[in-house]
Amino acid sequence: MLTLFHHPMNAASRFVRLAFGEYGEELELIEEKPWARRKEFLALNPAGTLPVLLAEGDVPIVGANVIAEYVDETRGVLKRDKRLFAEDSIGRAEIRRLCDWYLVKTESEVTRHLVRERVFKPHMPSSQGGGSPDSAAIRAARANIKQHLKYTNWLAGTRDWLAGTRMSYADLAAAGTLSILDYLGEIDWAENGAARDWYSRIKSRPAFRPLLNDRVRGLSPAAHYANLDF
Amino acid sequence: MLTLFHHPMNAASRFVRLAFGEYGEELELIEEKPWARRKEFLALNPAGTLPVLLAEGDVPIVGANVIAEYVDETRGVLKRDKRLFAEDSIGRAEIRRLCDWYLVKTESEVTRHLVRERVFKPHMPSSQGGGSPDSAAIRAARANIKQHLKYTNWLAGTRDWLAGTRMSYADLAAAGTLSILDYLGEIDWAENGAARDWYSRIKSRPAFRPLLNDRVRGLSPAAHYANLDF
Repeated sequence: MLTLFHHPMNAASRFVRLAFGEYGEELELIEEKPWARRKEFLALNPAGTLPVLLAEGDVPIVGANVIAEYVDETRGVLKRDKRLFAEDSIGRAEIRRLCDWYLVKTESEVTRHLVRERVFKPHMPSSQGGGSPDSAAIRAARANIKQHLKYTNWLAGTRDWLAGTRMSYADLAAAGTLSILDYLGEIDWAENGAARDWYSRIKSRPAFRPLLNDRVRGLSPAAHYANLDF
Repeated sequence: MLTLFHHPMNAASRFVRLAFGEYGEELELIEEKPWARRKEFLALNPAGTLPVLLAEGDVPIVGANVIAEYVDETRGVLKRDKRLFAEDSIGRAEIRRLCDWYLVKTESEVTRHLVRERVFKPHMPSSQGGGSPDSAAIRAARANIKQHLKYTNWLAGTRDWLAGTRMSYADLAAAGTLSILDYLGEIDWAENGAARDWYSRIKSRPAFRPLLNDRVRGLSPAAHYANLDF
């Protein structure tokens, strides 16, 4: 069994867990506090970022998009119509664009700030940046959520799945991200019906179940978080 | 001929130009001001980020890592020992990790801030964020440069090329980034001899020449910028 260094409130880690889940492969999970900069973890990934996969032979594979490509090359290409990547270059480029959208753009404009201020800071020692939440950062992130939901709603309303006719990495990257914002009660689903229908389909998949059981200390999820009929 | 929307002071754009240059393929270049959010450009890439390649059939391929994968799939795989990617999955994962290091981590900790404050702001209307440079942002970015140079120096001192025995995308991503910092006179080469030797090898390549001719209005490059014997 391969090992994944992850955090339940890290969107990129959730994306990787969903990908392995869809391929029916279990992972040994090691929870890593991303702010702690643990020495043994920095030896695996000097950038200190999550997720890191220990692949065959305990070789560290660093970063969600790098892991996704590795998983496709070593597993996905054999999955035929269950492959989470397109068969053609242009289709793969669209999937990669959307993975970057959620794991880089949404992350840097929304997710990272809300998770840091609302989830991490209360557990961080002040020497590592802990303290009271920065309400201006929370306000800015909340203002940015709207355009990301609107874009997701547009994609979900004009395509079968976010990147085209088949479920792909793009859906898992989006779902990994939105599921964290949903845990935090930050999503207005009523305003975004197509996104909601799409999320409901993803949420019902067996691979999603472990994510719905994730809990973080001191912060309960929104009431509808684990509800398949939300 | 394919078209690339780029900016001469955007590291990710330089990386893509180097990759096409190494494969001996000319690009039509269209300079895009990343802060302008031009409507026609947003239609190609709603994220508004650079670079964007118009591939065969004018399909937009968005983002440096997405373009790099596309170029490898459509060109690189045929290049044998000139391929800028490894032949095996673990080798490709290491190249991708280093591309992310320079184009995501160095970008967000160093390059983006120095370019915004020193290059873009004087040309930006105040309605789009222009104004006088933020000296605290410049100071923070300069403090961060050191560890990125030190890491590059370590890689260059322990391997033939940054990701292993062959020149790869990793070298081009690093060179695209460092060449911008070098234009701005921000690099202390004397302290980083192995990185300097590596950069000197990259800088002498024919694919690098167009970058050495890049100039931005109102800001001359450091005296040694285009000097192959710096």
